[in-house]
Amino acid sequence: MRVSVIGGSAVNEGVYETARVLGTQLAERGHTVVSGGLTGVMEATARGVEQAGGTTIGIIPGTDRDDANRFVDTVIATGLGDARNALVALNGDAVIAVDGGPGTLSEIGHARALDKPVAGLDTFDVPGVQPVETPEAAVEYVEGAVETD
Amino acid sequence: MRVSVIGGSAVNEGVYETARVLGTQLAERGHTVVSGGLTGVMEATARGVEQAGGTTIGIIPGTDRDDANRFVDTVIATGLGDARNALVALNGDAVIAVDGGPGTLSEIGHARALDKPVAGLDTFDVPGVQPVETPEAAVEYVEGAVETD
Amino acid sequence: MRVSVIGGSAVNEGVYETARVLGTQLAERGHTVVSGGLTGVMEATARGVEQAGGTTIGIIPGTDRDDANRFVDTVIATGLGDARNALVALNGDAVIAVDGGPGTLSEIGHARALDKPVAGLDTFDVPGVQPVETPEAAVEYVEGAVETD
Amino acid sequence: MRVSVIGGSAVNEGVYETARVLGTQLAERGHTVVSGGLTGVMEATARGVEQAGGTTIGIIPGTDRDDANRFVDTVIATGLGDARNALVALNGDAVIAVDGGPGTLSEIGHARALDKPVAGLDTFDVPGVQPVETPEAAVEYVEGAVETD
Repeated sequence: MRVSVIGGSAVNEGVYETARVLGTQLAERGHTVVSGGLTGVMEATARGVEQAGGTTIGIIPGTDRDDANRFVDTVIATGLGDARNALVALNGDAVIAVDGGPGTLSEIGHARALDKPVAGLDTFDVPGVQPVETPEAAVEYVEGAVETD
Repeated sequence: MRVSVIGGSAVNEGVYETARVLGTQLAERGHTVVSGGLTGVMEATARGVEQAGGTTIGIIPGTDRDDANRFVDTVIATGLGDARNALVALNGDAVIAVDGGPGTLSEIGHARALDKPVAGLDTFDVPGVQPVETPEAAVEYVEGAVETD
Repeated sequence: MRVSVIGGSAVNEGVYETARVLGTQLAERGHTVVSGGLTGVMEATARGVEQAGGTTIGIIPGTDRDDANRFVDTVIATGLGDARNALVALNGDAVIAVDGGPGTLSEIGHARALDKPVAGLDTFDVPGVQPVETPEAAVEYVEGAVETD
Repeated sequence: MRVSVIGGSAVNEGVYETARVLGTQLAERGHTVVSGGLTGVMEATARGVEQAGGTTIGIIPGTDRDDANRFVDTVIATGLGDARNALVALNGDAVIAVDGGPGTLSEIGHARALDKPVAGLDTFDVPGVQPVETPEAAVEYVEGAVETD
């Protein structure tokens, strides 16, 4: 399935590593990753996906495909600015949030408005987000939630 | 100034009344109200604005202007679906959230990503949202926050 | 009704004057004008509307309401870039094109995809655009086309 | 490079065959095809791409990825309605138009607003569209135009 991974564009090393491991695990499980295509969690996840030979779709806010981080396989330019956040949430069958700021919060809202399952790693504590402790638990949660859908 | 009022589309009587009073007070203070233009908090606020002789702009997700509630003065159809939430947040100088579900959460995220002040009446407890107890306090907060901007 | 006026952002004096007169006539006939809110035809029309005491809604591509020309009454910021052209076409009951470049062409396409009548003053000669010679004829055409709708 | 192929959603057999051949040739030349992902020219091109072992990205107006034709490899749901046309034009380095109606016209406008080269096979005769007679000529034109960019 497709999993949207969302999170902050400026993160510390620990978060970066968590996101990289998450990307690797998603790719190893055969999932395609969707993200906002830029820096921080978006880059770390795509890097992990690439290390595991998987595929990342990056949906970016600007009009220049070169704005995407170099680990994204398929860049979709939107030119929509922040409204592209709705497309990031929409294009996953489930969502995993890692850390993150207000942009991430908007994506969580969009995902829940579409009734998509959301796992949260060290992110906002809001209704509809399943808090998990590890990348493994995040993957497990979204796999189970989509299966029973 | 312009104040975006966001909140649930299906609300109980108490929330509806709070939103109506909020609309009245915003209009009395000379503010233009921006909203998503539909039911619930969006309708109640626009009704209150009308009662006070003010103006509401309703930015709706669909393509048919008749989808807006009848209290909206200027309806903007977008056809953008959920991505229109980004426009609701963008078009206010400040935001007041009343109750609300995941769509409201996405708008809070968009507003904070744009660094707009957000007051919250009985809504999500997330960083960047100033909790207030009454419509008066909400109006006071956003007026003060925009002034010192 | 609402009439979207579309056209180039950089125009010569003759086109500017045509658009200004068009704005005046639309306002005198009680119509609200919708436009892209920027320079050239968009500015000239809004200027004419203001001279006749009417109302212009400007739907702009950027996020800063101050980008709009000073004759617009209600500015809607979108942050959508070129995708905002779809909203300009969508928010009129009919469309009048004056001169214009590729952005105008995209708006003509969007308007016709929505089956909205389009009058053209010295603009693209494409199917579905009714060529007219004067602002009067443009107003007359769109009034008639919407009435018999 | 990426080539956006645009055209009507309801076409006759001759146009369908032209679009299919175009898709085959683009894929054989190593180009990725971008399209609106639905029926008619969009389906025919993706079918031709698949026959040649290439890749098609389909950017659809709705929210359900299953709306795309079955030949699309990567479906991007937008939920943006007609505003997605701007994204179809944006995501190609060049554009080839085949036949088509008003939606196609809007995409031609968006492409030209972004200064992307556009080849036209039996489509609108508007400034900035290079008329060509065959799929081969269309591919040749866009390859040359992007190269000398």
